[in-house]
Amino acid sequence: MTTATATTVTAQDGGRGYLSNKDNYLTRLRRIEGQARGLQAMVAEEKYCIDILTQISAMTSALQSVALGLLDEHLNHCLLQAAIVGGDQADARMREASDAISRLVKS
Amino acid sequence: MTTATATTVTAQDGGRGYLSNKDNYLTRLRRIEGQARGLQAMVAEEKYCIDILTQISAMTSALQSVALGLLDEHLNHCLLQAAIVGGDQADARMREASDAISRLVKS
Amino acid sequence: MTTATATTVTAQDGGRGYLSNKDNYLTRLRRIEGQARGLQAMVAEEKYCIDILTQISAMTSALQSVALGLLDEHLNHCLLQAAIVGGDQADARMREASDAISRLVKS
Amino acid sequence: MTTATATTVTAQDGGRGYLSNKDNYLTRLRRIEGQARGLQAMVAEEKYCIDILTQISAMTSALQSVALGLLDEHLNHCLLQAAIVGGDQADARMREASDAISRLVKS
Repeated sequence: MTTATATTVTAQDGGRGYLSNKDNYLTRLRRIEGQARGLQAMVAEEKYCIDILTQISAMTSALQSVALGLLDEHLNHCLLQAAIVGGDQADARMREASDAISRLVKS
Repeated sequence: MTTATATTVTAQDGGRGYLSNKDNYLTRLRRIEGQARGLQAMVAEEKYCIDILTQISAMTSALQSVALGLLDEHLNHCLLQAAIVGGDQADARMREASDAISRLVKS
Repeated sequence: MTTATATTVTAQDGGRGYLSNKDNYLTRLRRIEGQARGLQAMVAEEKYCIDILTQISAMTSALQSVALGLLDEHLNHCLLQAAIVGGDQADARMREASDAISRLVKS
Repeated sequence: MTTATATTVTAQDGGRGYLSNKDNYLTRLRRIEGQARGLQAMVAEEKYCIDILTQISAMTSALQSVALGLLDEHLNHCLLQAAIVGGDQADARMREASDAISRLVKS
């Protein structure tokens, strides 16, 4: 990646590396919202605990997959740019990316 | 817990140990649905990746907490009853509880 | 499972449901100890970060698998017995099992 | 960070961002090895399941903490350098870092 390309990318999506896949993320998050509504229906209709837990595991995996996708695009766009620019801002961005990863691993 | 109590509980909520807290779970799941909608708004408004990831971690924790609550009530109601009844059914219920725990730990 | 069987099991392994597979668990834990030593060698020899992280993920999975095995046997032996005996002890055992599951899910 | 500094760092520890804390990591991994030995002693002495599970959770957290430390240093040293150098190598390094993060989040 040349500095020229990096500048172009910055202008387009500085800190929003997911933008080229925005519709894809919106679709997945809408499906996750549907799963949350489905869980409420299961509780309201008094479904079996274990079946509810199975749906929660599926929803957690879907959410984790969105997070890993966003993080991957963040590393490949935002962090790469920050690194090229360098300086304190690069350090700060690395720090916040590290913190976000810690929260994901622990959640 | 005496066998008599266990039988009463079975009649009320066999396999649905969360029923006494049904409203509480519905409220929490509605909030989680709201979080899923909030995430869509963040993506639509092109918010910063890291802020979206922070919200996803919060939502994952809320979901995990619902799952652990349901599992706790499942162990204390459904599994206790199954154990008292005994036989193949108890074994089958233990197996499915174990499997649900594995999925939660791995998801 | 009849009360007679349960009593026999209690006499053998009350609270130590893993005993029939003791050698299997010892073998797996020895292998995990070996993985911990292997990681030290990798750091000492200054191996590439990502390769060390791959080994840590493998070791974490092995450890999680031992935990899920122990928990499964705990549910099937210790908790089943406690449930049959009933009373406050059953409640206390369910509580500590729930807490152990929470720690595993969150760790 | 200037390119000059980056070059110096590359010469010292290209892909081994943890080197300045090598002794710290060795100490922590030795302690983790000790925990693995302690677990074997607990199984050999037929300790209570739940106590063994508590130790496994502690060991998993210690291991996860080492992984997050290594990953943080990898992002701050190796990836920053790769980003500055740019090109296919930067992309490849980002890809392998993303994959390592996925494995950590899922393990």
